[in-house]
Amino acid sequence: MARRLYELVGEDPARRFSPYCWRIRMALAHKGLAAECVPWRFTEGAALGFSGQDKVPVLVDGDRVVSDSWAIAAYLEAAYPERPALFAGGDARPARFLAAWADTVLNGALARLIVSDIPRWLAPGQAAYFRRSREARFGMSLEALTEGREERLPAFRANMAPLRLVLREQPFLGGARPDYGDYAVLGSLQWARCVSELSLFESGDPILAWRERMLDLFGGLARDVPHCG
Amino acid sequence: MARRLYELVGEDPARRFSPYCWRIRMALAHKGLAAECVPWRFTEGAALGFSGQDKVPVLVDGDRVVSDSWAIAAYLEAAYPERPALFAGGDARPARFLAAWADTVLNGALARLIVSDIPRWLAPGQAAYFRRSREARFGMSLEALTEGREERLPAFRANMAPLRLVLREQPFLGGARPDYGDYAVLGSLQWARCVSELSLFESGDPILAWRERMLDLFGGLARDVPHCG
Repeated sequence: MARRLYELVGEDPARRFSPYCWRIRMALAHKGLAAECVPWRFTEGAALGFSGQDKVPVLVDGDRVVSDSWAIAAYLEAAYPERPALFAGGDARPARFLAAWADTVLNGALARLIVSDIPRWLAPGQAAYFRRSREARFGMSLEALTEGREERLPAFRANMAPLRLVLREQPFLGGARPDYGDYAVLGSLQWARCVSELSLFESGDPILAWRERMLDLFGGLARDVPHCG
Repeated sequence: MARRLYELVGEDPARRFSPYCWRIRMALAHKGLAAECVPWRFTEGAALGFSGQDKVPVLVDGDRVVSDSWAIAAYLEAAYPERPALFAGGDARPARFLAAWADTVLNGALARLIVSDIPRWLAPGQAAYFRRSREARFGMSLEALTEGREERLPAFRANMAPLRLVLREQPFLGGARPDYGDYAVLGSLQWARCVSELSLFESGDPILAWRERMLDLFGGLARDVPHCG
């Protein structure tokens, strides 16, 4: 049966920049599962009504509909146990912390570095919606949120210490090979890479070398897309 | 053959307060392995010469000598695979990030909240050594390091967001049961609990409820020790 992934895109449907959609696109490739991309744009929440909520990613797998990236990853592991494991031992729960860190610390820090770069990639109506909704959420303009970002980069890099510590010792967060933890973090960096020219890391940072290894995976799945960074 | 764990203690040999030693004490209990505690104090680095380095924990397991808490945990998992797994699927590497987060973010933040409480638990010569070496490392007095700590607690609590997010969803970081990730974080909180009266968390915080579950494990192994917090 058909497998479809609803993914956030910009004005150009090839510009996919959602950190949470990237997690699942990579997780599907890890499992060797094809899935048609259904482009979805901000304000099209109603188009996801069938899923009982209004956010991407949404995976439709035959007659199963799953939303929320963590729930989708756990679903994929449970539904396709014979394919390469996304989680050590097939159990998602011990990996929850790393995804939660990416959700809160990493995505929170990145928002304050790149969010003002997003509207330029959206059609005018989408851009207006994005600006209005995010400025309400953050309580300030997108430009105020990212103001002084160059000066804040050293603090951002220092906050990435646990990532750097692991990647000095092993090639992937998962060990010798990537697992869902790698895709969770890559998703965030891919969000930045697809919308912003800001150089998040200094050359020589083990995090950058790891990102290159991630961009090489699955025939360059995450590398060969419209990007800025 | 004899199994011994060299553990940091204060003037009172029952006051064990090293976060890294607590990780291994809990990991040994998880594996159901007994190990005699060899009390070790700051400045007794020479007593660890047999291990080729000068820090605790050091595990002596028959003719094997292993130092560094992460290396000891990986050793225990590899040496006792038939006992309850410390790591999902028996592979330590995907759990490296959580331990690295505790090493850097959590222990770094806790040092700035509690380090000035430590000398009072040490004999005079040990206290002088601790103060001198730590003040050189941090470049300021222990009291300067923890100054204004009450005012910094809200920021500390906010930084614990990923921990809180996971513990709202599942009883342990490992899922339904604790694993090494739980022991890594508990070790840090136990460090604070054994030397400081500072209330790190507000009542009702899911992190506190989790800590209670951790203190209940193994017949109250971590609860029933000299503590302040």
